[in-house]
Amino acid sequence: MRAEVVSIGDELLTGQKVNTNAAFLCSELGAAGVAVERVVACGDDEDAISGQLAESLGRSELVLATGGLGPTRDDRTKRAVCRLLGRELVFDRDVYEATVSRYSDRAASAASNLRHNAMVVEGSVVIANAVGLAPGMMLDCGKTFGNRQLVLMPGVPAEMEEMMRRSVLPVIAERSGGVIVHTHIRTTGIGETSLAGLVGDIEDRLPGGTTLAYLPHEAGVHLRISSSGDDRGAVERDNRVVAEAVRTAAAGYVYAMRDVPLEAVVGELLLSQELTISAAESCTGGLVSSRLTDVAGSSGYFRQGYVVYSNESKAGILGVEPETLAAHGAVSEAVAAEMAEGCLEKSGADIALSTTGVAGPGGGSATKPVGTVCLGLARRGEDGEVSVRTSTFRTRGSRRRNKLRFSEAALAIAWRELGTKE
Amino acid sequence: MRAEVVSIGDELLTGQKVNTNAAFLCSELGAAGVAVERVVACGDDEDAISGQLAESLGRSELVLATGGLGPTRDDRTKRAVCRLLGRELVFDRDVYEATVSRYSDRAASAASNLRHNAMVVEGSVVIANAVGLAPGMMLDCGKTFGNRQLVLMPGVPAEMEEMMRRSVLPVIAERSGGVIVHTHIRTTGIGETSLAGLVGDIEDRLPGGTTLAYLPHEAGVHLRISSSGDDRGAVERDNRVVAEAVRTAAAGYVYAMRDVPLEAVVGELLLSQELTISAAESCTGGLVSSRLTDVAGSSGYFRQGYVVYSNESKAGILGVEPETLAAHGAVSEAVAAEMAEGCLEKSGADIALSTTGVAGPGGGSATKPVGTVCLGLARRGEDGEVSVRTSTFRTRGSRRRNKLRFSEAALAIAWRELGTKE
Repeated sequence: MRAEVVSIGDELLTGQKVNTNAAFLCSELGAAGVAVERVVACGDDEDAISGQLAESLGRSELVLATGGLGPTRDDRTKRAVCRLLGRELVFDRDVYEATVSRYSDRAASAASNLRHNAMVVEGSVVIANAVGLAPGMMLDCGKTFGNRQLVLMPGVPAEMEEMMRRSVLPVIAERSGGVIVHTHIRTTGIGETSLAGLVGDIEDRLPGGTTLAYLPHEAGVHLRISSSGDDRGAVERDNRVVAEAVRTAAAGYVYAMRDVPLEAVVGELLLSQELTISAAESCTGGLVSSRLTDVAGSSGYFRQGYVVYSNESKAGILGVEPETLAAHGAVSEAVAAEMAEGCLEKSGADIALSTTGVAGPGGGSATKPVGTVCLGLARRGEDGEVSVRTSTFRTRGSRRRNKLRFSEAALAIAWRELGTKE
Repeated sequence: MRAEVVSIGDELLTGQKVNTNAAFLCSELGAAGVAVERVVACGDDEDAISGQLAESLGRSELVLATGGLGPTRDDRTKRAVCRLLGRELVFDRDVYEATVSRYSDRAASAASNLRHNAMVVEGSVVIANAVGLAPGMMLDCGKTFGNRQLVLMPGVPAEMEEMMRRSVLPVIAERSGGVIVHTHIRTTGIGETSLAGLVGDIEDRLPGGTTLAYLPHEAGVHLRISSSGDDRGAVERDNRVVAEAVRTAAAGYVYAMRDVPLEAVVGELLLSQELTISAAESCTGGLVSSRLTDVAGSSGYFRQGYVVYSNESKAGILGVEPETLAAHGAVSEAVAAEMAEGCLEKSGADIALSTTGVAGPGGGSATKPVGTVCLGLARRGEDGEVSVRTSTFRTRGSRRRNKLRFSEAALAIAWRELGTKE
């Protein structure tokens, strides 16, 4: 079954609201085996609404429209639908009584609104609104529209989501038979272009019904493999085979076969190996610690963070040798190494990460341009021996983006150190 | 001028991505005096793309399409446009050389993709991509489409936004004629509804050609006042009058009359008053330090950051009294006060911020539910005397959102301490 989502509301065309309703509907429909072919947002104008619904019903067997149903003057959806289908608005006593009983306290003032609110499109199956006021409707659009289905729901997310899950999805799932399966693959340390070079052959030989999508993020490239069809077994097999092939082709860059951030994977590895971590940051200014502690339960392995911006604090807090700073400069692997060692000792953690670099826009030089970061990882072995590794990473972008890419590179070093299990 | 936004990408139809690009484009276009009539999301399929572009170009004078331009095989937009307009893809040497010079290190493997990336639609004005790889394009669609304008941009937000602001909006503003003036007003510590209550009267009496838009962000509500017309003097006057009225009505919440984050305003106040700052963070895990150091030049006033998650580190590093921790618990104003004092002393800064709270999802209690944070600010006066203020702030949301709101509340305390000059 093919579907379209029509989101109604001026606020979507002025950019005042991000259309999260559409994302919710698309993922719920996809999970129910219904492919959404278009999402359209149009204004609160009666002509625009009826025009768009006519267009969408002309293309798709199922159209879900949200918005413009509340009991306020600027709601035009019901009138637009009546005009489009040549129907009347009829009073629904059940809806009215349900709302009056819930709003009796302010009934007097609300009565007329509640009456208006209880007017539904003739011939529709009314969907009760357990959260708010406005009722939803499911309509068979009749011969003119090849008996295609139209679902009307309020634009308030909580109301729409509840209606969708409780009343609409069961009906839809019954009508459609298909299956859709997704696998998310998260990578780090490789750009979209290079990654495409690695998995290009797989893309050329994708089984029918399976697609591979690149979802580039600021910190790394994510892949999504989607398979659809009628036979669940075959769909899941196709998806698994492609996912495994990609994982092998991009080995060393894939940190998760699910939609989870790098800091969460690092956290899982630390927990499973009963290790603790600390961070000493210069150019990332606390972002590495902040990302590590974005993970629920990170207090189980995160020990301490130090943000040491100045040379004085690098020396004073972490014991970086003034000679090292003088000889190599603050942005150097030598300093990154001493920062990591000092952080390990000070915090008593098993692993310490360090970052020192040039986030920009100023501060760059010929040998250390903006976008350069030196990274360190110090680790205390079972024998108590401390081992230190350092590396240098380069990127380009705004100060914020550089900080993010720097923090990703630091977390990637921890991930590689702890074992790239995924 | 009437416009349509076409967002291309399967991930928008599967619900894996919320269409934030469309919201950005709508608000920028609206501010430029261009009304968006429809936003359409369609899949990465060549037929769907060309079909949708034909439909949109049939309706609107300006169509902005994002997505499907990256140098990977799931990108179909360029081919679809060529087919629709009967044009060829031509090799653009400038684009190629710009990308090769940036990716020379791994050129060998990437070369073919970079070539592919440098193919642009014949007859288009190429828009350089300062952030990523894929070039954008501006096209006159020729007689068949009444010489309507088509703009192609990548789907990666950072790349698209940079192209839009630097290259596309100036051209659009010029074509749409007239003068457009914006004032951005940034607020903190007040929600959209309460803010609307304060400025409602102003909204009801806006002069013609002037609009007030709410741009809610995770950390606070931003307002944008846009005025357009032919007479620059009148447009600027109208905009200024409304902006001043809003600033007065929302006094105490407005931290900037420009589009600048709170950490930048705090930084300016610190610089102008020649003061330094440090942060001691528990629940925010380094986010306060990270935000302070997001600002270019922050090394001029940021001294040090401590991320002290455990009670041991609060005591060991910042000298929080075990008795205080035992008597009041880690999440208490008493502990926030000692953290701030310890941080001030340790770092030698003039001002120290501290955060200790419950970011969630676990760890909440009846008296200290998830979303509770205790904040401290310690300041060394000219006489060397140390003064400490503490407060408790509550919010509700995901762990990440709570951390962000906590960090915003901490920065807001510093802003109020340093003088709410704007």
